[in-house]
Amino acid sequence: MYSVAVLGATGYSGIELLRLLTFHSKVDVKAVTADKNAGYTLDKVVPPLKGYYRLTCKKIEDIITEKFDVVFLALPSEQSKSVIKEFLNPGSIIIDLSDAFRLKTKQQDSLLDAIYGLPELNRAQIKSAKLIANPGCYPTGAIIPLAPLLKVNIIKKERIIIDSKSGVTGAGRNPSQELHFSEVHEGFKAYKPIFHRHVPEILQALNVITGGGVNVTFVPHLVPSNRGIFTTIYASAESNKNITQAMLEDLLIRAFKDEPFVRILKSPELPDTNAVKGSNFIDIAVRFDEQDSTVILFSAIDNLVKGASGQAIQNMNLALGLDEKEGLFTPPLFP
Amino acid sequence: MYSVAVLGATGYSGIELLRLLTFHSKVDVKAVTADKNAGYTLDKVVPPLKGYYRLTCKKIEDIITEKFDVVFLALPSEQSKSVIKEFLNPGSIIIDLSDAFRLKTKQQDSLLDAIYGLPELNRAQIKSAKLIANPGCYPTGAIIPLAPLLKVNIIKKERIIIDSKSGVTGAGRNPSQELHFSEVHEGFKAYKPIFHRHVPEILQALNVITGGGVNVTFVPHLVPSNRGIFTTIYASAESNKNITQAMLEDLLIRAFKDEPFVRILKSPELPDTNAVKGSNFIDIAVRFDEQDSTVILFSAIDNLVKGASGQAIQNMNLALGLDEKEGLFTPPLFP
Amino acid sequence: MYSVAVLGATGYSGIELLRLLTFHSKVDVKAVTADKNAGYTLDKVVPPLKGYYRLTCKKIEDIITEKFDVVFLALPSEQSKSVIKEFLNPGSIIIDLSDAFRLKTKQQDSLLDAIYGLPELNRAQIKSAKLIANPGCYPTGAIIPLAPLLKVNIIKKERIIIDSKSGVTGAGRNPSQELHFSEVHEGFKAYKPIFHRHVPEILQALNVITGGGVNVTFVPHLVPSNRGIFTTIYASAESNKNITQAMLEDLLIRAFKDEPFVRILKSPELPDTNAVKGSNFIDIAVRFDEQDSTVILFSAIDNLVKGASGQAIQNMNLALGLDEKEGLFTPPLFP
Amino acid sequence: MYSVAVLGATGYSGIELLRLLTFHSKVDVKAVTADKNAGYTLDKVVPPLKGYYRLTCKKIEDIITEKFDVVFLALPSEQSKSVIKEFLNPGSIIIDLSDAFRLKTKQQDSLLDAIYGLPELNRAQIKSAKLIANPGCYPTGAIIPLAPLLKVNIIKKERIIIDSKSGVTGAGRNPSQELHFSEVHEGFKAYKPIFHRHVPEILQALNVITGGGVNVTFVPHLVPSNRGIFTTIYASAESNKNITQAMLEDLLIRAFKDEPFVRILKSPELPDTNAVKGSNFIDIAVRFDEQDSTVILFSAIDNLVKGASGQAIQNMNLALGLDEKEGLFTPPLFP
Repeated sequence: MYSVAVLGATGYSGIELLRLLTFHSKVDVKAVTADKNAGYTLDKVVPPLKGYYRLTCKKIEDIITEKFDVVFLALPSEQSKSVIKEFLNPGSIIIDLSDAFRLKTKQQDSLLDAIYGLPELNRAQIKSAKLIANPGCYPTGAIIPLAPLLKVNIIKKERIIIDSKSGVTGAGRNPSQELHFSEVHEGFKAYKPIFHRHVPEILQALNVITGGGVNVTFVPHLVPSNRGIFTTIYASAESNKNITQAMLEDLLIRAFKDEPFVRILKSPELPDTNAVKGSNFIDIAVRFDEQDSTVILFSAIDNLVKGASGQAIQNMNLALGLDEKEGLFTPPLFP
Repeated sequence: MYSVAVLGATGYSGIELLRLLTFHSKVDVKAVTADKNAGYTLDKVVPPLKGYYRLTCKKIEDIITEKFDVVFLALPSEQSKSVIKEFLNPGSIIIDLSDAFRLKTKQQDSLLDAIYGLPELNRAQIKSAKLIANPGCYPTGAIIPLAPLLKVNIIKKERIIIDSKSGVTGAGRNPSQELHFSEVHEGFKAYKPIFHRHVPEILQALNVITGGGVNVTFVPHLVPSNRGIFTTIYASAESNKNITQAMLEDLLIRAFKDEPFVRILKSPELPDTNAVKGSNFIDIAVRFDEQDSTVILFSAIDNLVKGASGQAIQNMNLALGLDEKEGLFTPPLFP
Repeated sequence: MYSVAVLGATGYSGIELLRLLTFHSKVDVKAVTADKNAGYTLDKVVPPLKGYYRLTCKKIEDIITEKFDVVFLALPSEQSKSVIKEFLNPGSIIIDLSDAFRLKTKQQDSLLDAIYGLPELNRAQIKSAKLIANPGCYPTGAIIPLAPLLKVNIIKKERIIIDSKSGVTGAGRNPSQELHFSEVHEGFKAYKPIFHRHVPEILQALNVITGGGVNVTFVPHLVPSNRGIFTTIYASAESNKNITQAMLEDLLIRAFKDEPFVRILKSPELPDTNAVKGSNFIDIAVRFDEQDSTVILFSAIDNLVKGASGQAIQNMNLALGLDEKEGLFTPPLFP
Repeated sequence: MYSVAVLGATGYSGIELLRLLTFHSKVDVKAVTADKNAGYTLDKVVPPLKGYYRLTCKKIEDIITEKFDVVFLALPSEQSKSVIKEFLNPGSIIIDLSDAFRLKTKQQDSLLDAIYGLPELNRAQIKSAKLIANPGCYPTGAIIPLAPLLKVNIIKKERIIIDSKSGVTGAGRNPSQELHFSEVHEGFKAYKPIFHRHVPEILQALNVITGGGVNVTFVPHLVPSNRGIFTTIYASAESNKNITQAMLEDLLIRAFKDEPFVRILKSPELPDTNAVKGSNFIDIAVRFDEQDSTVILFSAIDNLVKGASGQAIQNMNLALGLDEKEGLFTPPLFP
């Protein structure tokens, strides 16, 4: 059994890690931290998990002398940066769920040169990684479907439009006026268009595929539901390709045929966040709008699973040399 | 007092017409039809309106001998077509809320040559109209913000992308598997992408402005809420324009300065369907993504008000020569 | 035109007062306060109301030298107590929406001896009141249906069980972990059972009717929706009465026949919060469970209207000698 | 591996059986039926389960010649009655999820004399059962918490009030006007009070404990969410008992200490349907209202798991002699 620590165990990503790890037969959660709830049992702090873990929440500083095979950082970005060095050591794998280490350009300390943990792009590297930067939920929903099309130059890399719609858990568990129940419920809105912090992450991943030159317009929206990111992507077809609906579907099916967590839906089916809830799947569909040569990609993920904690466990499995699906191949909760 | 008939009074558009008309001081609802509920009082069939109307639901055939100053058809498209001639007469104004008469190309009978009832585009014509085709909810949310930008050629008319998100009342009141509560709740999905029946309506209206050549990709999505359409529009800036955020906002403000139901939000504000619920407003904002010269428009409407029954009353006011705001300038219900 | 001030204008009750007052033809809102947003225009702070008021939010201390015909206090209880004396003067009517002045036993200062503003019980007193304690939302939903049955001794006054279910706006607009969107959405729970602060208010009102001896068990629950309180009340029938369903319905109909905002639903109809949303109605139904001689009462209100701001305006109308329905007889928003 | 058939596989209970059985290591689903979807693959008919079963939906008549170790009937009551005999045979265990065989008084055919499948009451009998009537969701939420208190006569068996609140999946998957998304969303209502079909089932189970004389008033309500039943129960304390909060909690803890799926929450904690979603738990709390000697019980279950398919699998495990928790001890999905 591998020993695991979950830092930031009482945020949504932390709770989701703990929920998913109950399915895992090869790891043992040895420590959980939760600064505000330090000293309380996990049963008390997270009632849904009552009966699953006999653990008491600690402060991060209380566990820095311990060693774990895997350390999950489900912390705010700044806090990740400030504590990560305490956990770097030869025998440990660190998986950071924040955006602290995702951008290459930001790291000056080579110790903190993380592998970008998107298995569908980077599986080989992840397998030998010691520090993994777990992708953001929005980038996950956008990069995976775009990758195979960009790889074969079937779509233009300029002016890709990514219109994303996320459930509210994506914004975390801290209360705020904007995320107060009645401010969100029954409403629908865009927020932080264009200059969203996720854009550089998307560009970095896509530019690796294309060799540079990718340009995206990204607008996130808030859906009045708990979980799920639905992404609609509009890209211009390369004019010299004879694109058809069948060819696009075929391309996606072939590209992802060995991916355990990617499900391609054939027309007329389309993804629905309700069909992936609680699971690590990304459901993808494509359409071709012949009239103006636009390729439309659709994806649905659970932002807390494939968009965060599930993907983190997928990365852990890879880095530990385990079956990638171990503890993760649980079906969606419907409805 | 003008006499009014509401045909199809127990669908969502019909109920909304009746709700809004309680605020109107110049009209009197004289007859309501509801085929399935004929013979029952409106109080019984629509409990929320109990106490407002002393009317009994009739069959359409039972009122064709009566004359009304205004007849609202809140019927399925096919039914509108089959009954409309019974109500055409010199003294009456007919406002059809279906898509039966919106497209010019479809009408071979000049009697049925309707005016497209979007006051922000067609106010002068509506004032003397006898037959008004009330716009669709999706087209309303897309056409109004696009119109002023297309008028001054600040955006390209090719490859305009319209990503719309609608509450469930937009799909009507008839039960179906797809609109069963638990199928929709907590989910999010696209439906009928590309070839949606609303595309020709959008193109027709925009081509009037540009003189032709408009091309749109339209994808509607279903939001798990009752009311509201949020529309995100992506258009390429004309390269020879020096576009700035301030210029775009200014252009919108000037274009709509006399419009009673258009509210332009300045950056950093963005529309929210929660801020227009129950009202006839369309809230609009714009952003400029300099990096790839994309103009992004945002609009929020209540699909049952500005997207249907409120706009129908706005059209009625215009056609009757009344104050356009009469009975309609009621504030949103928040939250 | 009567001059009005709304203190605490940017909480849900304050916003709802401002929304409802747009329908009122006899009053003019002259001042609004919002401590945290002082200095900003109402348009900016409450976007849904954009275009309705040309007012700037002030601090309470900035308006204490002004005189108003009516002052609404939509403030936290403690703040109401600390500022109310500044607004007490012979020419003003004060309507306090908090629970600061509802209980007789709490007041030692006779100046602060408020009239309990439940028109269905206290109409005569309200008409000459200068200080009105607006009832709580839970008490409103419970007291109105119980009153006529207790008045004629048809139910026992001991062990009345009140099981209430409230939408989230009832808990106010301040963000907290418990009211964070994802903590509430898709959940359902009871909170603060038995010793809820609303119990003494319910008892005080019912004991006036019975001459004392009323005993209630009250459990509030949180519904994952914005507006609405649904109340289910269980009371034992007095054994010496020959109770029937018809008799109970008849009793309610007669008791409330002159009440403009009470709607009695006959079996098999039952209230639904969706049928009163945005309106000042209380919908009531009754059932008799013969098997164990239990009378069941059902009521539905919009907690922000009949449960708060609508009732406050109803009280204002009475105290000013206006038509009680002025500006308030607007129909529910459905759905 | 035991062979399993799921009849009615595409209703909510059927889908939930299939979801839960993916966690089970000892059974193999060999056949699924779905009359309307016969001939289609399960992948196509239930997209969320895509990738889990290589099965094609059949008609019931197509599998009656096959033998299975376990047959789940997730069918409407009438259909269960009409097909059950086809599957009765010595080697099979039949678990019926409808209410067809729950009431003893209804069965005249001794072959159809089912065991009532509530493990917390009937574990011993279930272990040797061949035909199990799986309890209703409302009865499950009410009977389990009441049982230990009735057993020791700490509460009166007359006039027990059960106020239940259910998510919409409890009403099944068939579309209807009443369960159309927008009719339910944002609303809250009671339905079928008093004479609900679940009352006799509750009485039968409780009368076994008390030896007769139980009397309940039962009112179900509809919560605008997908899953979850929250039950609030009010019972009069037996006057000759010295009841305290601590004694009641202790009684519950002891009564359920060996129950794997019952979690007792101590004051001030209270159940929340969000804390059991997707799991087989029933969370229970109790309060004592001293003032009028009322004991209040609270329970939360997921109506599709402990209220239907999870309990059915728990029964299967018992009847097959497996570990009761096999495949069922999966944690709730939060949020």
